Amino acid sequence: METHLQQQLEDLKSALLRMAALVEEQIARSITAMMERDVELCDQVIRGDQPIDAMELEIDDQCIRLLALQHPIARDLRFVAASMKITIDLERLGDIAVNIAKKTKRLVGMPLLKPIVDIPRMAEMSQSMVKDSLNAFVRGDEQLAVDVCVRDEAVNQLQDQVFQDLVTAMVEDSATVPQALQLIFISRHVERLADHATNIAEGVVYFSEGRVIKHHGNDDPNQPPNRPVSGGPA
Amino acid sequence: METHLQQQLEDLKSALLRMAALVEEQIARSITAMMERDVELCDQVIRGDQPIDAMELEIDDQCIRLLALQHPIARDLRFVAASMKITIDLERLGDIAVNIAKKTKRLVGMPLLKPIVDIPRMAEMSQSMVKDSLNAFVRGDEQLAVDVCVRDEAVNQLQDQVFQDLVTAMVEDSATVPQALQLIFISRHVERLADHATNIAEGVVYFSEGRVIKHHGNDDPNQPPNRPVSGGPA
Repeated sequence: METHLQQQLEDLKSALLRMAALVEEQIARSITAMMERDVELCDQVIRGDQPIDAMELEIDDQCIRLLALQHPIARDLRFVAASMKITIDLERLGDIAVNIAKKTKRLVGMPLLKPIVDIPRMAEMSQSMVKDSLNAFVRGDEQLAVDVCVRDEAVNQLQDQVFQDLVTAMVEDSATVPQALQLIFISRHVERLADHATNIAEGVVYFSEGRVIKHHGNDDPNQPPNRPVSGGPA
Repeated sequence: METHLQQQLEDLKSALLRMAALVEEQIARSITAMMERDVELCDQVIRGDQPIDAMELEIDDQCIRLLALQHPIARDLRFVAASMKITIDLERLGDIAVNIAKKTKRLVGMPLLKPIVDIPRMAEMSQSMVKDSLNAFVRGDEQLAVDVCVRDEAVNQLQDQVFQDLVTAMVEDSATVPQALQLIFISRHVERLADHATNIAEGVVYFSEGRVIKHHGNDDPNQPPNRPVSGGPA
């Protein structure tokens, strides 16, 4: 019985790693597609979402079978519960990659606006948060998880700046409205990559130690009450 | 043992109903605050989020204790698993109410733009979807759940129209950019109420029957590939 349980937990971890690898690949592709305005790559990202959706459902089933047949307890039970939550974030990270790809396709042919330079920097920060949150989950590395949560604020600040730049562009020249809006939406998606990484990292701490760092004050990661942003961020 | 299990399942259901009631109340308040541009009510909504966050963590703990001690199987196990997923949607619905309140505060003092008339209609549709998805969950009413999923498309269409109206307003008069942006963000939040209702409804079907209606084609509820929206919706 013990052996069965350990084997099934390993299988679950492997499935999560496969899902995470697919998600990371989709995110990386969508960012490259955005920076190079590569329509073909956008289409690849859009087509690449289906296997991730399928994996969410498979992993849910795996968790339910494991709970029903193996009755894990303590740390093992927490790991299974965390897995059911993490698949939601992984699936939504995959959706965000698709959304970035779709919005990038709308930018093709439009003139470049200056503020896009900061979006790739946001993307780099968000991607490394996603990677580290998944590593923290797999290794049960609480310190790395806390570190990920701390980095979220820097991404938020960068997004505020991108947003302000784009609003200024729109107000000064209304011809920029269509592409500035797409860039605002893209920057929000990139920022939400970081939010989901933070969710995953918070879950690592909660489920590994039963300690709560969720809900540490900022309920709208796109718009915390204390950041001075005239006009309002995305 | 059986009695204990049934009692704990009842307790879990009661806790979910309390959380759902709080969430529905927060949503209703945020919509009223938006329509009446009531700053005091906005502040009430912002302050009202903390108990919802606390309940998510309590219900997670309740589920883990129940799994550890009672070993539910079959339908009962699926109900516990669904509960752990549904708290995520409930918590995010609560966050959306807060976001609507925060963005409404930014609108105060700005002149009214015409398209706001359709946002309350979107809000009404989204609110009834949230209500019905929760009813479907509590009663295990699969037909009602399917009905909720179908209604999501009408909300999406209305949001597209609101978005187009607001883009037109911005292009025609760049002085409208700040308030039009806030209205775009508010309409996105309202539309996401409907998305979470749909998530909950899809979960009802999945967990009650093991039948999959998740991921039925639209991976970006804000921007499905087949809707013809020049310029791009929010």
